[in-house]
Amino acid sequence: MSAILLKGKQVAKAIYKQIDVEIEELGENPKLVIVVIGEDSASKFYINNLIKKGAKHKIDVELLKFPADVEEVEILNLIAKLNDDKSVSGIMLQKPFPKHINDDKITSIISPDKDVDGFHPQNIGKLVLGKDGFVPCTPAAVLEVLKFYKIETSGKDIVIVGRSNIVGKPLANLLLRKDSTGNGTITICHSKTKDLAAYTKKADILIAAIGRANFIKENMIKKDCIIIDVGINLIEKNNVQKYVGDVDYQGCFDTAKMITPVPGGIGTITTSLLLKNVVRAFKINSK
Amino acid sequence: MSAILLKGKQVAKAIYKQIDVEIEELGENPKLVIVVIGEDSASKFYINNLIKKGAKHKIDVELLKFPADVEEVEILNLIAKLNDDKSVSGIMLQKPFPKHINDDKITSIISPDKDVDGFHPQNIGKLVLGKDGFVPCTPAAVLEVLKFYKIETSGKDIVIVGRSNIVGKPLANLLLRKDSTGNGTITICHSKTKDLAAYTKKADILIAAIGRANFIKENMIKKDCIIIDVGINLIEKNNVQKYVGDVDYQGCFDTAKMITPVPGGIGTITTSLLLKNVVRAFKINSK
Repeated sequence: MSAILLKGKQVAKAIYKQIDVEIEELGENPKLVIVVIGEDSASKFYINNLIKKGAKHKIDVELLKFPADVEEVEILNLIAKLNDDKSVSGIMLQKPFPKHINDDKITSIISPDKDVDGFHPQNIGKLVLGKDGFVPCTPAAVLEVLKFYKIETSGKDIVIVGRSNIVGKPLANLLLRKDSTGNGTITICHSKTKDLAAYTKKADILIAAIGRANFIKENMIKKDCIIIDVGINLIEKNNVQKYVGDVDYQGCFDTAKMITPVPGGIGTITTSLLLKNVVRAFKINSK
Repeated sequence: MSAILLKGKQVAKAIYKQIDVEIEELGENPKLVIVVIGEDSASKFYINNLIKKGAKHKIDVELLKFPADVEEVEILNLIAKLNDDKSVSGIMLQKPFPKHINDDKITSIISPDKDVDGFHPQNIGKLVLGKDGFVPCTPAAVLEVLKFYKIETSGKDIVIVGRSNIVGKPLANLLLRKDSTGNGTITICHSKTKDLAAYTKKADILIAAIGRANFIKENMIKKDCIIIDVGINLIEKNNVQKYVGDVDYQGCFDTAKMITPVPGGIGTITTSLLLKNVVRAFKINSK
């Protein structure tokens, strides 16, 4: 037997459809401002995609580019101005910033109501406490896949490998909530975990968010488990570059019951969720 | 063999000693304001203890009492006033409030810099993100016990039973941090967990925060595990009332390697940590 593919495309499509309905009701285009410092070719693809999708779904996306040696105070002043600017619905920072700019400091002065990335401490806190706030896009994409493919989480043994602030930790807290994509029994593993396979092997749902290519092998998973692969790693094989996940997809394909492909899985959904957050920010800020 | 007792008294003593040194340096008494609405005999003991310990350690504790039918707006205005009052270092709400008062709303308007309970979303967010903020006293007390008794957490299988916003969830996030009381492999179990004993039986460190008297039995734990019992439950036996933990203490005593007693364990430490937060708040607010 081979696994059912949990493709992201249909999930994203459903989210865009919902966005279109909401924008129609608004009768006005929300605006996302993206702050970019220096050149980062890796993020270009993501940003270009945001601009393209924004245009298609009537969300204005404005890029504010700064040279790599811009002073921190200039960015702090900019954020203050964007916070006050009623025409700006959401603010996104294209990280990582150059080293002389304190990412955390900048994030913490963004108005929590315009923090469409969901990285402001207040939004992370709300997420933990089960209150409405902006949820970071990658953990949110995992929840959308679970919802779309009607994957039961209540009482399931869910193992998350990776404890990052932007994926592992928020995801653990989300999957613990008392709602339709929550109530899981959650284990968080990481680099200090001893005998990792002992945990992954008993997982009903295994979520890989480690950032290491093909790290989860067939002998580390349970028969008929569900695999959500959050990793996107660029590797080179026979002089050809390609993206692979944190899971050895080929190896696990026959053992797992369901699996998200990479590319074409979780990463396919995040842009739609960022834009969904912008629409929500528009509504909150025009109250 | 019988378990080593992880008593709270010495831990609290060490914290008070540190408070005394810091207060000496300040040359001024910090002030804690406790907002109490209606009569609640259960919290009286805790509050009286805070007043007593405050007096002993040069922290002014002021009680602001309101009748049970006070209007919410009056409390909201009070908090705004306390936020602005430079003589107030920390604000504590004696919850639960009567039903017509929205606890969350009140908590969320407390200045995060005066939120000595650590329940404001921004402080919970900082806790998750590994940033300095106020940590709620009960999870903090667990960390203090681990530190005081030099219990290694890195790479250990740590199972938390209970997913409350004030204990289980913040504790899970704290024990995941990359520090001396962190780096654990964390599993959070709760009412929806299937086969709870399968998880608790493999725990190196078992943390019980369920709120059910004597719930964890000897056949649910591993030989030589370390048990942290956060529960405080009032039971009646032979017409005598007494407090017991979430763990069947007598039953587990010979199997566990170390165990916190109830009473005399975690609960003994929380008051000292609340006052420690007040001292910290004083410093932050006088900057």
